[in-house]
Amino acid sequence: MMAQLNEFGDVAVLVPAAGSGVRLGPGAPKALRLLAGEPLLVHAVRRVAAAPSVRVIVVAAPAAEVEAVRGLLADVAPVIVVAGGAERQDSVAAALAVVPADVAIVLVHDAARALTPPGLVESVAAAVRGGHPAVIPALPVVDTIKEVDAGETVLGTVDRSVLRSVQTPQGFRHDVLAAAHRAGLDAHTDDAGMVEKSGTPVVCVPGSELALKITRPLDLIIAEALLHVP
Amino acid sequence: MMAQLNEFGDVAVLVPAAGSGVRLGPGAPKALRLLAGEPLLVHAVRRVAAAPSVRVIVVAAPAAEVEAVRGLLADVAPVIVVAGGAERQDSVAAALAVVPADVAIVLVHDAARALTPPGLVESVAAAVRGGHPAVIPALPVVDTIKEVDAGETVLGTVDRSVLRSVQTPQGFRHDVLAAAHRAGLDAHTDDAGMVEKSGTPVVCVPGSELALKITRPLDLIIAEALLHVP
Repeated sequence: MMAQLNEFGDVAVLVPAAGSGVRLGPGAPKALRLLAGEPLLVHAVRRVAAAPSVRVIVVAAPAAEVEAVRGLLADVAPVIVVAGGAERQDSVAAALAVVPADVAIVLVHDAARALTPPGLVESVAAAVRGGHPAVIPALPVVDTIKEVDAGETVLGTVDRSVLRSVQTPQGFRHDVLAAAHRAGLDAHTDDAGMVEKSGTPVVCVPGSELALKITRPLDLIIAEALLHVP
Repeated sequence: MMAQLNEFGDVAVLVPAAGSGVRLGPGAPKALRLLAGEPLLVHAVRRVAAAPSVRVIVVAAPAAEVEAVRGLLADVAPVIVVAGGAERQDSVAAALAVVPADVAIVLVHDAARALTPPGLVESVAAAVRGGHPAVIPALPVVDTIKEVDAGETVLGTVDRSVLRSVQTPQGFRHDVLAAAHRAGLDAHTDDAGMVEKSGTPVVCVPGSELALKITRPLDLIIAEALLHVP
């Protein structure tokens, strides 16, 4: 059944899915890999659409696959599909360009985190709504972390109590994300990194174990086991 | 069927399992939580026993449960069970004390990493045999990592390319681990940390995605899905 979005919602969610990940093997773009018979992107969009604050979802697809992605999502939720760019930030910018000006909050989400629950979308949006210009969901780091040199020799044990493992969706005040993009600040890892460089404070909220990134072949087995965890 | 250990092997594996982890819920010690009907410790020992270089396995159990643990492992593999101590390092020391002097390599393994494949036990042991006094299996860090202050505000993005997420078994030359314990060097996180403080170089070898730490309730669902991955 096709989800309906909340026309009075204050949140747009951007899903840059134009990259061709290779970590799940050669072939289809990462976001289109199948999990229990459906592309990761479909799983991700379905959960985003179930978050009550979401008014707009924009997916940036590979230019050659815009129509195919539109068809794929036609029965999932009302989604705007745009052509993405060569780099991830180009895709975010292309998606951001079609977000209505009166949408106050923009989230950027990774389709590879296909099992991210609607509740996490809401809690990130709520933190932005509550006054934080930039919000990222994050988990404590559970394994011991070592810093190594180029020869894989341990330089020391890192204090993991101050480290957070970052997930998506990352949430921003619309104007803050737009300004960071206009400034063209480079960030190779995540959107919050770009906003950090602009001097805007970024705050962490608790992430979800279900929001794991599905990139390695083993992750598909894990994701399938977690598919029906509420 | 009871596994046989290799009487010509050069490896002892210590499994400190005296702690009472609470992260899987109240009640039984962490190592005795059930996965597919069997305690994590049984899964862990079965896989360790399948590694061809292993001659001795020593489990440190809670003092009140030594007999019960002995019974639990009776059909799994020939295992020495000793009473552990209050702290993890006390349990490692108690287990180390019964390792025959002519065993050249000692591994310390976490029962919560119950699905660690025999091949990882072998590769850690092989690296010690090959001349490294201290060896830890580790994986690259896949998520973006942020450093935060006490208020969960991001201080910066950490260069994750130099970070490794550490697993077990951690492997040591017998004399190196014994010396670190005699020195009584404190290490709250792992055995390699203790050896690091003694000035001995510690080197990383590739870990395994199957060697995940099973601590949170969701991890049991994940572990069950991975139980039969070769």
